[in-house]
Amino acid sequence: MSIYLHDIPLPQARERFQASLVEHGLAGILGNEKVALDVKVLGRVLSVPVWARISSPHYHAAAMDGYAVKAGETVGALPSKPIFLVIGSQAAYVDTGDPLPEWANAVIPIEQIEPQTQNFGQQINFPSIPRIGIRTAVTPWMHVRTMGEDIVATQLVLPAGHVLRPVDLGVIAASGEQWIEVSKKPRVAVIPTGSELVEIGGNIKAGTIIEYNSLVLAGQIEQWGGTAVRFPIVSDNKEQIKNVVQGAAEEFDLVLINAGSSAGSEDFTASVVAELGKLLVHGVAVRPGHPVILGMVVNQSGSKWVPVIGIPGYPVSAALTGEIFVEPLLAQWTGRQPFCPQEIKANLTKKVTSPAGDDDYLRVAVGEIDGKFIAAPLTRGAGVISSLVKADGISIIERGKQGLEAGSEISVRLYRSVTELRNTILAIGSHDISLDILSQHLSKYNRRLVSANVGSLGGLHAIKRGETHLAGSHLLDPQTGDYNTTYIQQYLSGTPVRLMVWLYRLQGLIVKKGNPKHIYTLADLSKQGLTYVNRQRGSGTRVLFDYQATKLGIKMENMQGYENEEYTHLGVGVAVASGRADCGLGIAAAAEALHLDFVPLFEERYDLVIPIRFLDNDFLDPIFELAQNAQFRSEISSMPGYDTRDMGKIVDDEG
Amino acid sequence: MSIYLHDIPLPQARERFQASLVEHGLAGILGNEKVALDVKVLGRVLSVPVWARISSPHYHAAAMDGYAVKAGETVGALPSKPIFLVIGSQAAYVDTGDPLPEWANAVIPIEQIEPQTQNFGQQINFPSIPRIGIRTAVTPWMHVRTMGEDIVATQLVLPAGHVLRPVDLGVIAASGEQWIEVSKKPRVAVIPTGSELVEIGGNIKAGTIIEYNSLVLAGQIEQWGGTAVRFPIVSDNKEQIKNVVQGAAEEFDLVLINAGSSAGSEDFTASVVAELGKLLVHGVAVRPGHPVILGMVVNQSGSKWVPVIGIPGYPVSAALTGEIFVEPLLAQWTGRQPFCPQEIKANLTKKVTSPAGDDDYLRVAVGEIDGKFIAAPLTRGAGVISSLVKADGISIIERGKQGLEAGSEISVRLYRSVTELRNTILAIGSHDISLDILSQHLSKYNRRLVSANVGSLGGLHAIKRGETHLAGSHLLDPQTGDYNTTYIQQYLSGTPVRLMVWLYRLQGLIVKKGNPKHIYTLADLSKQGLTYVNRQRGSGTRVLFDYQATKLGIKMENMQGYENEEYTHLGVGVAVASGRADCGLGIAAAAEALHLDFVPLFEERYDLVIPIRFLDNDFLDPIFELAQNAQFRSEISSMPGYDTRDMGKIVDDEG
Repeated sequence: MSIYLHDIPLPQARERFQASLVEHGLAGILGNEKVALDVKVLGRVLSVPVWARISSPHYHAAAMDGYAVKAGETVGALPSKPIFLVIGSQAAYVDTGDPLPEWANAVIPIEQIEPQTQNFGQQINFPSIPRIGIRTAVTPWMHVRTMGEDIVATQLVLPAGHVLRPVDLGVIAASGEQWIEVSKKPRVAVIPTGSELVEIGGNIKAGTIIEYNSLVLAGQIEQWGGTAVRFPIVSDNKEQIKNVVQGAAEEFDLVLINAGSSAGSEDFTASVVAELGKLLVHGVAVRPGHPVILGMVVNQSGSKWVPVIGIPGYPVSAALTGEIFVEPLLAQWTGRQPFCPQEIKANLTKKVTSPAGDDDYLRVAVGEIDGKFIAAPLTRGAGVISSLVKADGISIIERGKQGLEAGSEISVRLYRSVTELRNTILAIGSHDISLDILSQHLSKYNRRLVSANVGSLGGLHAIKRGETHLAGSHLLDPQTGDYNTTYIQQYLSGTPVRLMVWLYRLQGLIVKKGNPKHIYTLADLSKQGLTYVNRQRGSGTRVLFDYQATKLGIKMENMQGYENEEYTHLGVGVAVASGRADCGLGIAAAAEALHLDFVPLFEERYDLVIPIRFLDNDFLDPIFELAQNAQFRSEISSMPGYDTRDMGKIVDDEG
Repeated sequence: MSIYLHDIPLPQARERFQASLVEHGLAGILGNEKVALDVKVLGRVLSVPVWARISSPHYHAAAMDGYAVKAGETVGALPSKPIFLVIGSQAAYVDTGDPLPEWANAVIPIEQIEPQTQNFGQQINFPSIPRIGIRTAVTPWMHVRTMGEDIVATQLVLPAGHVLRPVDLGVIAASGEQWIEVSKKPRVAVIPTGSELVEIGGNIKAGTIIEYNSLVLAGQIEQWGGTAVRFPIVSDNKEQIKNVVQGAAEEFDLVLINAGSSAGSEDFTASVVAELGKLLVHGVAVRPGHPVILGMVVNQSGSKWVPVIGIPGYPVSAALTGEIFVEPLLAQWTGRQPFCPQEIKANLTKKVTSPAGDDDYLRVAVGEIDGKFIAAPLTRGAGVISSLVKADGISIIERGKQGLEAGSEISVRLYRSVTELRNTILAIGSHDISLDILSQHLSKYNRRLVSANVGSLGGLHAIKRGETHLAGSHLLDPQTGDYNTTYIQQYLSGTPVRLMVWLYRLQGLIVKKGNPKHIYTLADLSKQGLTYVNRQRGSGTRVLFDYQATKLGIKMENMQGYENEEYTHLGVGVAVASGRADCGLGIAAAAEALHLDFVPLFEERYDLVIPIRFLDNDFLDPIFELAQNAQFRSEISSMPGYDTRDMGKIVDDEG
């Protein structure tokens, strides 16, 4: 078998791996452990069923405080005509939970007992014998918890493979057990490799990468019922990696090597696995994450085979490889069902392309609009871990498909509950930092804000297509000097909306600290040797720039960098900070965040555009409330260049 | 305020409790803890947002192995006409992740580089200068992970209140943090009280109750983000309870007292709370669980107020009180959103009655039939913890409603994922122990079996109403001696079904060990002094008994205990074992399970009735497969009185 990367389809990879597990007797649970019934066993998996040792209740128990009686002796009692029972032989006081006397088969609650000292008239012939009077008959076993009502001795209490929850501990105790058998926790070695890696908290410089994949993988393993040990970083030295892997094979049930799983000059995982045992798979047709290695290594004495997974280095690839290969293996080894996330149908907000040869794992944000779920694709890059953090779910575009059109119905495997998705306010449009602050405040109202930045015009289109609850927009009409109204008329005819002023903010030039190139006006951008960084078409900032630049007679085709588009203010700031550009139009907050200088030029209005059909219920009310909330407003206006004087004011767009 | 139980509505109870928390400054998070980024923080709640300290990548990084170049210098490269770049000044080798040289802004992947030693014909003028040849132009920043592509320094990485997942640990590390602030884990004292209680593993005799509520509550608390300490059992002694509670108030953030929360002679919780501080609520209008106590106690020095919850003693009440009062408090104290289980709409399979004055928490099993969810109510008793273990969800019948009709649409808060519910095979009808074994085997096929025992006839009705995928049935037709066919014709006209033989089993008399009353035939049941225990009307066993007894001329009205109905074979066994009855008709396995004797009388056939519309897809295939599986068959036929000779045979019910 070649050790060079050659992608095979996922089912085939799984099959080859599984066959090898079977061959080495590693396809079932790894072992049993007898453990005491305690909160520590929560989440563990029963390896042997629990059968009831005793019944519960294990005796006939009074279900109320009262008197135990023979039901037959209460027949004939009437509200108008009480019956009297002799305490001792015919009635015995019991508290809830007390065993019934042998002769009794019902309980009369204490509230229904006539105090024995009461005068019942002539019927009390023997006042010296203590009795109770009753005015209602009871049927057999009334107010009694009969033996076995809850659990019958010998019955199946919980099956093998059951994952223990708090209430399960109770039912096991009730059935008379104090020890249970659970499957052994698989022990997993997580070995980070790479000379470019530094430990978290280590010294960071250009070219170093903070090693956190092992932390994510270890976290996944713990959540999936295993025990993870994170190894120290191993440099890209084949012999060293080989030694560490072989050592790990002695002690662990599974070895994860991260990364070096591709076929580059410094990628040693495949040859290490091949030399220590068997390389089963090198390359799986999934994106992201295709350079996966599946293999089996043997320990030094040759007595123990241990599966090895070579995990790709990009963080999204690493985490998804965990989900695809490690989770099902831990399920198999602990005897539980593999996790089975809820799937929903959703409509894709935009076209995505996909390599036809791969299963493509698309991360999406999900919300519900007009009773239908819509899914917005997140950044695709395998290096963008924040896309996985933001993901509400994953949609798999299967091999053979080259992508999907906007509006396509897709299946999404959810990371969040449907209830959370239903509480989600979608804000697709122009992004402003105030939306992050809004998001923090909304959580107190049981709302979640998901914002996607597609620019102001993109937001209006999203509204038109019914894909967002609201859109941030700051589109200047050069003719009127007004904001948004003209664009709404043009793009949203037939979709009545309300236009609410959100805030005013300063737009200006973001420049390097100290403004070394002396840029003070847009006119300065015509100077030679300056590189500009632009915002994407359709963004309010771009509209503003083009309007002002045209007014000044600046020739865009002569500007260096005009074609470089960033999607956010911070993106523009980063371009300047990293030296990719000398300046760009943006907001003061972005400059300040990145310790850059800011040349204020224009104050602009930033509005929220909201379809009026979403105002029928209270779903968006928290936003209107917060717009009037003094603390919220002051949090926003304290940011440089921000003003909330008109926040919440409705612009009369329909009159 | 009276210390006597007086139920108030749930919202009012919450409000009173919340007001007191606010009064004592206990309504927010309890405190911060600075912790290192590690798998140990999984599930903890961020108390302070994480803002990015650095960008990720924190430099412009090569996204591929290859050569870093200036994009502008690649313009004009064509497949037919390569361009040559000088290594060093125009092109520099980079591995994936390496920083780009200052002057470079794109990477050409190694696969697209022409080896410099190759002969490009006459164009190589200076063979001594090392160069690369390229045949494709690149655009700026192509194959580069630009600084901040993933995270921009200063941006919000994760908000306060976020519950940490494995992937979050990665994004925090990527943003340059190694310490985070999380909310303090609330410390909860769980104090079991009651002289009748024994610890798990203790000596069990009539009248003693195994104390496991503290285990369930502690498990809940751990799962909800708190730390629980289980106290030793305290006897029903007011002074002792008072001392323990006051001691706990010194050390803990919350004290749970279980039980003694009602108003009986041994119920001290209310007066203990009143004497140590303030009794806020005694009694909440919820079922089960109404004798709840909410209060606030002060420590000895008077310096610290601590909330106390008096938790009712019945296990279902205790666990639900945890969900209703403890979970939201822990959410508030840790700063996370309260758990928000998914709600679905389902149709109720049978009528339920409910006290009009209470919010009634109905436990239900849920499955999906014909694309609609149906909910089968489980045992209602507050003492039946197995009902909570079996529950797929909870439906709240609100105050003011006296119950619901069969078929009503209800909202169910789910304990399981919808995916699990969709994989659920419902078997409502006559129960047989073989279905428990079937259930174990089905889990390997990603199916869950939920069986409810309503007797054979009840099962046919459930099929008729579209509430079950299949029904176990063993209804003998006295005329023909045949099983089920006649009944199917009578009750299921218009609902075509397939009738599959499942097994044969011996029915006989379950009697005490040693058969002390010498019962050998049904005719013996006419003897004086014998108490019989019957099965419920509509069960196959009852039909069999009535048929055989009538044939023998036994007069039911003379039989003692004929009116006592049990719903299961094991129930009949327990009645005999506990002395409630001398004998009952049932199967050998039930007798053996409870160490009773068995007098075999008749072999009967037990079938599965399956609507043919469920045979359209592969949903039930695992059952047909298992019916032919040798190991499965032998597991069943090894039980006493069981025979699987015809398992899986289809009875020609339509011909």
